[in-house]
Amino acid sequence: MLPLILDLATLCDLYASRRVTPIDLAEVVADRMEAASDPAIFITPMPRAALRAAAEDLMARHPEPNSLPLWGVPFTVKDNIDVASVPTTAACPAFAYEAQADAHAVARLKAAGAIVTGKTNLDQFATGLNGTRSPYGAPRSVFNPEHISGGSSAGAAVSVAAGLASFALGTDTAGSGRVPAAFNNLVGIKPTPGLVGTTGLVPACRSLDCISIFAATVADGVAVRQVMEGFDPADPFSRRAQPRALPARGLRVGVLNPADREFYGDGETEALYDAAIARLPALGAEAVPFDYAPFREVAALLYQGPWVAERLATIEEFFAEHAGAMDPSVRAIIEAARGYSAADAFRGRYALEALRRRTQAVFAEVDLLLLPTAPTIYSVAAMSADPLQLNARLGHYTNFANLLGLAAIAIPAGFRPDGLPGGVTLVGPGFSDDALAPLADALHRAATCGMGADRDTALPEASRIASPDTHTIPIAVVGAHLSGLPLNHQLTDLNGSLLARTRTARDYRLYALPGTQPAKPGLVREPGFEGPGLAVELWGLSPAAFGSFVAAIPAPLGVGKVTLEDGSAVAGFLCEAHAVVGAREVTAHGGWRAFLEATA
Amino acid sequence: MLPLILDLATLCDLYASRRVTPIDLAEVVADRMEAASDPAIFITPMPRAALRAAAEDLMARHPEPNSLPLWGVPFTVKDNIDVASVPTTAACPAFAYEAQADAHAVARLKAAGAIVTGKTNLDQFATGLNGTRSPYGAPRSVFNPEHISGGSSAGAAVSVAAGLASFALGTDTAGSGRVPAAFNNLVGIKPTPGLVGTTGLVPACRSLDCISIFAATVADGVAVRQVMEGFDPADPFSRRAQPRALPARGLRVGVLNPADREFYGDGETEALYDAAIARLPALGAEAVPFDYAPFREVAALLYQGPWVAERLATIEEFFAEHAGAMDPSVRAIIEAARGYSAADAFRGRYALEALRRRTQAVFAEVDLLLLPTAPTIYSVAAMSADPLQLNARLGHYTNFANLLGLAAIAIPAGFRPDGLPGGVTLVGPGFSDDALAPLADALHRAATCGMGADRDTALPEASRIASPDTHTIPIAVVGAHLSGLPLNHQLTDLNGSLLARTRTARDYRLYALPGTQPAKPGLVREPGFEGPGLAVELWGLSPAAFGSFVAAIPAPLGVGKVTLEDGSAVAGFLCEAHAVVGAREVTAHGGWRAFLEATA
Repeated sequence: MLPLILDLATLCDLYASRRVTPIDLAEVVADRMEAASDPAIFITPMPRAALRAAAEDLMARHPEPNSLPLWGVPFTVKDNIDVASVPTTAACPAFAYEAQADAHAVARLKAAGAIVTGKTNLDQFATGLNGTRSPYGAPRSVFNPEHISGGSSAGAAVSVAAGLASFALGTDTAGSGRVPAAFNNLVGIKPTPGLVGTTGLVPACRSLDCISIFAATVADGVAVRQVMEGFDPADPFSRRAQPRALPARGLRVGVLNPADREFYGDGETEALYDAAIARLPALGAEAVPFDYAPFREVAALLYQGPWVAERLATIEEFFAEHAGAMDPSVRAIIEAARGYSAADAFRGRYALEALRRRTQAVFAEVDLLLLPTAPTIYSVAAMSADPLQLNARLGHYTNFANLLGLAAIAIPAGFRPDGLPGGVTLVGPGFSDDALAPLADALHRAATCGMGADRDTALPEASRIASPDTHTIPIAVVGAHLSGLPLNHQLTDLNGSLLARTRTARDYRLYALPGTQPAKPGLVREPGFEGPGLAVELWGLSPAAFGSFVAAIPAPLGVGKVTLEDGSAVAGFLCEAHAVVGAREVTAHGGWRAFLEATA
Repeated sequence: MLPLILDLATLCDLYASRRVTPIDLAEVVADRMEAASDPAIFITPMPRAALRAAAEDLMARHPEPNSLPLWGVPFTVKDNIDVASVPTTAACPAFAYEAQADAHAVARLKAAGAIVTGKTNLDQFATGLNGTRSPYGAPRSVFNPEHISGGSSAGAAVSVAAGLASFALGTDTAGSGRVPAAFNNLVGIKPTPGLVGTTGLVPACRSLDCISIFAATVADGVAVRQVMEGFDPADPFSRRAQPRALPARGLRVGVLNPADREFYGDGETEALYDAAIARLPALGAEAVPFDYAPFREVAALLYQGPWVAERLATIEEFFAEHAGAMDPSVRAIIEAARGYSAADAFRGRYALEALRRRTQAVFAEVDLLLLPTAPTIYSVAAMSADPLQLNARLGHYTNFANLLGLAAIAIPAGFRPDGLPGGVTLVGPGFSDDALAPLADALHRAATCGMGADRDTALPEASRIASPDTHTIPIAVVGAHLSGLPLNHQLTDLNGSLLARTRTARDYRLYALPGTQPAKPGLVREPGFEGPGLAVELWGLSPAAFGSFVAAIPAPLGVGKVTLEDGSAVAGFLCEAHAVVGAREVTAHGGWRAFLEATA
């Protein structure tokens, strides 16, 4: 008997045991699709015969179980993403066409052995976060048919939470890959924009759209993303991955200040957020309040600024002829695009770039953000009564991510007393997709809230994500490379992570080197000297980055071993003694930063 | 007696000899400014007393000659860039304001010892490439007062060419830092967008504007740029420099196909372009025709597409009230912005990103471009008769550069028989600013056309730019790292340069490794085997990049020594023998690329 939730680890074990084949699974999925209580999940379900044929074809070509990364794994595709020879509707019948080819991402998944089980329902043109804006019906949260599933990737999330697929492709422009995860007790992987090619996707906001993944576990979602990602030459917004690390220890996790909290009166969802924050210390992470204001201002640009015109830009001809055939809310949103001029669009870009700077300052203080995924959940009836305002509320904590090029992973956070779920989202710098995963997985496991519709099942141990690679070389920096100082970016550019703040042993002197630009100190050891010790930061670099960093250090500085106050010795900056002759000694300040502050 | 052209090397020598002081020079510059034959160069010249005071202040604070990088170097500032306590007009009296602070770039130059001698005339709001669109008059080419100086940085270029300053700050959005260089026998340095901070600049197209430099030699311009550059936290478009190298040997220089040539009937300027191309082989570079079409299409976006709205975006309020006070051509251009919607702006961005891909393909075939700077030059009378069309022609070869984030250096190319000058421009990838300089300097010297108004002076030997650092480690690549193949970017991302295409010795076999993604071959030596030898490329990497590259190579591949057909041995990819057991041998194809093409 198959479990309800078809997570990858469980499926892989079943296949390895040879007790189940992809053909068996195709039949089970077909049975479940026929028996599904929610009629609005699919726009085009694949027929039983097609599922069976796909499984048979896989077994003929690749008979060995698990001989491909996603061997025999069933998945659904949001119906704004092309699957060859199947209609793509974007939930707008007047717009529908039969796809000539698989989308870039779908082709990669098929090549890895995954099997498409159907095209799922969505808010029309992916414009919405609630899941009720479709002529094909409104999918419901698997926990309460009175309540919305979230959107726009509505059917996608429900298909996984209801056990109809192992994972689902959604899309995420404003939060469509995260909000439905929260409302269906799932993981939502929102890749860094450009990481997964979008060829074959009907654009919502073409410069921002991301193909996203709904999965039962973080590891599942990451594994699927890794299969899909890779440069897509036909997508002008595709970017080459530049993986970014996060600190291996002592993650600083940005959390909302009390004044920035907005749950629209839903104290129970707020309690789920607080519970997630409370789990951080046990996971070795520190909660650090941060200023949400610049993120909120970026979010406002997406729907209350010129970016709404992107939703018109790619369908303007269609809109001119068929606006009457569209969902009224979607039509009203796209219609608003006509109010913006090109000058408005450029001013929006200027505003975004200025806000980007402010958010970068936040990411100098914290390594990543922990936010509520959605501030609350609504009933379908409430959503119908106030479709625009309630939808806007759902994106309160998601709308900024793609404008800023960030990566995000939404994870379950548990259940309200009424049995409806809530979620939290980790948001990190661009290309921190992999680096976010260990903490996301740990928080998910600590929430002990099952997977999808099955609240009681345990997350498979095989899916546990190990801590990130800790094969780093520590180097003690004493001057312009300290956090916030002019050369610190050399360390962060090399994916360096701050390991510790400490001091040297007492027998070091520090000098301000004359004529250096930016100003740099020189550290010189003098055995027997009894000074205060100098403040240093230990940064971890990979061996290659370390080599690269060291090779770039100009004379008279170099790298040798520096003894710390605890007696240990680490690689660190030293200065040739000849360069400090006549230089101003600043040892008494106890460190370079203190000296700079005292003389500023 | 001072020479006409006040290039940095000459000035530095004079100061070092103590025969001239900055105070002396201030008097000379003031004399020359008073005597200048062109009354339209300056909007606000600094008075003699102010020049003298600035020189005295410098000598009081830094008495030692050349004790600062630009000690006592006189420069002019285009009047859309702020100099504290001096009006900024943007050549529009109704817009003028007194600057509260120095622009970021000006402040850096002053801190380096340079002295502002005046604010120079420009095409109003930097909108134009000809120099006649100003109520302060039209500066003229120093070679013929009937002819335009080029613009918009009109007075800037003339101030240097006429010996009134050692260098000048201009700005360059469409070509304003290059076209006037061509018409005044100067070097024009157009930095990579974002490299020089723009705080304190009146925007033309804020997302594209670059502060540029007019100088007598390439070395002078590069030295000034290096003083100015650096992260500008107040400029949201400022970017951290990521210097990019070009191949140390065998530069492939893109040149126009016959079908792409457009000189509007000016065969003499075309002859100057041909002469520049003809100099390449002697300088160790190869002329490679390339497809100019995508660059031409990008260029069209700037003035014939939604980017024109950027010119309105930052002055929309002023324009609403003062359009009547503006130059008619500038007004007409900015007025056209009203015809573009926000949806148009986003579609323009999509078009640009798609074209960017096509230009990237060109930069895979050539290392840099050599283009005419301007296709021809016009008289002031001709320009007045047809101000929009002739201006558009001047930007035929410049408009694309900033939209694509490229670096450019315009250099003199000699003179037409009628005594008017022509120029050529080297255009390279973003952040190739320094890497372009050696060839630019060599081409400039080979043209033997003097500096500025002095056609007969020799370029100082002290300004000669040495070839780039050649401390590279060659590595032979045989598979997916070859040019154009999926992993080639790993080499280019590390600033690797292609050194040679050659073959291995005959005793190597090549195998297609099963299950690799992207597909990779394995190279295995078998002493005594007599095969065809396998095609390899030699790439040069810095030691650090080499270490970083090697550390990232996954098993079963590794790096050892590969023997080439000439018997030499270099670092290169090898494959563990166990991995090729059962693999398909492709040796007979003579190389991986040939195999891929044969089986595509």
